[in-house]
Amino acid sequence: MSLLGAIDIGGTKIAAGLVTDQGKVLQQAAAPTPAALGPGAVMDTAAGLIRQLERQQGRSVDAVGVGSAGVIDPGSGMVLSATDALPDWPGTDLRGGLAARFGLPVAVDNDVHAHALGEAWLGGGADARQLLLVAVGTGIGASQVINGRVHHGSRNAAGHAGHMPLPEADGRPCPCGGRGHAEAVAAGPALLAEFRRLSGTAVRSLADVAVLAEDGDPVACRVLELGATALGRLIGGLVNLVDPDLVLVTGGVANCGPVWWRALRQSFAGDVLPPMRGVSIEPGRLGSQAPLLGAARLALELTA
Amino acid sequence: MSLLGAIDIGGTKIAAGLVTDQGKVLQQAAAPTPAALGPGAVMDTAAGLIRQLERQQGRSVDAVGVGSAGVIDPGSGMVLSATDALPDWPGTDLRGGLAARFGLPVAVDNDVHAHALGEAWLGGGADARQLLLVAVGTGIGASQVINGRVHHGSRNAAGHAGHMPLPEADGRPCPCGGRGHAEAVAAGPALLAEFRRLSGTAVRSLADVAVLAEDGDPVACRVLELGATALGRLIGGLVNLVDPDLVLVTGGVANCGPVWWRALRQSFAGDVLPPMRGVSIEPGRLGSQAPLLGAARLALELTA
Repeated sequence: MSLLGAIDIGGTKIAAGLVTDQGKVLQQAAAPTPAALGPGAVMDTAAGLIRQLERQQGRSVDAVGVGSAGVIDPGSGMVLSATDALPDWPGTDLRGGLAARFGLPVAVDNDVHAHALGEAWLGGGADARQLLLVAVGTGIGASQVINGRVHHGSRNAAGHAGHMPLPEADGRPCPCGGRGHAEAVAAGPALLAEFRRLSGTAVRSLADVAVLAEDGDPVACRVLELGATALGRLIGGLVNLVDPDLVLVTGGVANCGPVWWRALRQSFAGDVLPPMRGVSIEPGRLGSQAPLLGAARLALELTA
Repeated sequence: MSLLGAIDIGGTKIAAGLVTDQGKVLQQAAAPTPAALGPGAVMDTAAGLIRQLERQQGRSVDAVGVGSAGVIDPGSGMVLSATDALPDWPGTDLRGGLAARFGLPVAVDNDVHAHALGEAWLGGGADARQLLLVAVGTGIGASQVINGRVHHGSRNAAGHAGHMPLPEADGRPCPCGGRGHAEAVAAGPALLAEFRRLSGTAVRSLADVAVLAEDGDPVACRVLELGATALGRLIGGLVNLVDPDLVLVTGGVANCGPVWWRALRQSFAGDVLPPMRGVSIEPGRLGSQAPLLGAARLALELTA
């Protein structure tokens, strides 16, 4: 029985876990991402977390899997591009750098793909041959897992679902520099900004808006409903295109509660075509463990 | 060397051809689709065309491939659903019905998928590992061919790209019964209706609008530019999602000339994200032979 090291590298936090080859997370730990110190420090921190867990567990890992923010090439192991949250991350030899630190085989992929792989392995997608996962947080990313394999696209850049044009986003500036994209109306920052604008109150986070909505606050409800309606149309359109068995929606925004989910499901149902009416849209089941389990799944293939 | 029978079944016309295993179309013929007479008559007509070509050629085919309008299950050979253009087509055992008529192995698929397979085999997509084909005519359909294989989706319904919501289509009724979908603004009937509305003239077909646009008619130019701009945004969004090597745009609307193509390319470039900037968007190369060649490709696999 092999023991797998799993790493999830985000712009603000690095999570790590020791995972059995059956997908049981034995132990996990996290640390802030030392993004400003550069890629070497980020990889040192990630490796340090696994080493610390190995000491606590009294066992060594046999292989390491990594999900990371950015466009990752699983073939070469390189970071192809990334947002400003991880300066100098593009061009990093992520697999080589970690393999050298561990002296072990390492597999790498994008974090949304790792999340989807985790859900496809042991979570909500375990019974689906074709899973579409949509992660909605600071941005909107998607991943298709077909027969256990991620669809990476030609440049490993597949899944930029947040940049589909959407009527509800018409004219709004998108973080990518374009206009009218889904992220500009349905991602977390857009929802929070819209609530602040409409309510005139400086609420701290989207979680507070979700609480207000559950208490019946009409502005909070309206803001969540508008964002969820836009997202539901986007996902309906994606389903019409790719025809998955199942859609899982994850990420911070998916924790916005029943007001948001009701509007999402209603809007989704309104745009999906008759052949796809049986596709259900559900929250992910593994929460923040999903990317670690997906990373462990990548590592497991190295030990086969 | 095997000889392949290729059939393309549309709502108004059935085309057929004899194709070598190298993809050379030796001979072809067409007949109106006897849609009102039902599926048996449609299959009789298709089989009759191949028999006629065999007599002319003095040779018999070894296998038959079919691309057909509707949602087709290549596994069971059944028609799963179709528009009203082919009454009673849903539920037809297309593969079984034709196999019985020919006494030969038959392979079936959707016509847009057959078109994409043809282009991927011997046309514009021959050098692409991941092809996205978008067919724009009466409707808008898409097909992804990845390493020579069509992405069919879970219910064989993948490719309904015309039903993505789009800002430019906001509020407009779509043939599917929904609102604000791409087809409502960028497909052929929408362009023709918009030209008639804005110009007040009863122009006969979209081809006439294309001629007027090339002659500099400002209303014709504006109508084509609006439709192409909407379509370019849609395709840009699809590319951000699936990350193909290449996009081919085919169908009657893709024959609308340089005014339409210029607007399409400009709009596409405006919405595609940096990692995908190298993706080119081109017309298909095989024209109406593409679906026949795709059907022949399906038949070829039966003889391997």
